[in-house]
Amino acid sequence: MIETVDLTAKFALFSELWRPKIVGELNDSFVKLARLKGEFIWHFHEREDELFMVVKGTLRIKLRDRVVEVREGQFVIIPRGVEHLPVAENEVQALLLELKSTVNTGEQINDRTVEAEWI
Amino acid sequence: MIETVDLTAKFALFSELWRPKIVGELNDSFVKLARLKGEFIWHFHEREDELFMVVKGTLRIKLRDRVVEVREGQFVIIPRGVEHLPVAENEVQALLLELKSTVNTGEQINDRTVEAEWI
Repeated sequence: MIETVDLTAKFALFSELWRPKIVGELNDSFVKLARLKGEFIWHFHEREDELFMVVKGTLRIKLRDRVVEVREGQFVIIPRGVEHLPVAENEVQALLLELKSTVNTGEQINDRTVEAEWI
Repeated sequence: MIETVDLTAKFALFSELWRPKIVGELNDSFVKLARLKGEFIWHFHEREDELFMVVKGTLRIKLRDRVVEVREGQFVIIPRGVEHLPVAENEVQALLLELKSTVNTGEQINDRTVEAEWI
């Protein structure tokens, strides 16, 4: 079924933080939406690059040597192997593009690990 | 080099219509920006799904049995094999997500075929 996905309408369907929801799939990738607030955890993805696009708010992604700031209408791609720590002082609405194999906590499984569900 | 990509700033760098520009790469995919106005051509991609996200304007994508409308803040994924014809009555700024192998005119090469360049 081919249907238009409205970001605002999809964000209205959930409020949990740090629990990305799948809103589309193409090729080997999922399009996900996430609400982020506070600090996540340092992690990296061994074999997967990851895109963060900010729909609302300002996201800061700490790298080991600097911080990347991503505002509304901007995106950043974190290449595989690069340790990163997403931080959102105020709540951020972000669109993620990831391979289907990507685990939110990267190469570690812990209490922040979640399996994304479709909305 | 990890750097934030600003969509507005990137769109300001080009004005050609129907000539997608590459603004990012991750895994096997390119993120592209395109300015669209008027009608493109009917085409399909044999092995590649394609995402259209509208940044500005309203895009209509004709399918053989109906029309899908995509407005600002919305996206649609056209699955592989599905014939489609993008139409923009007024100019549209769109973000595309495609496999690196994707050719803009799909399974045909003609005078609308272009190789995307980085900006």
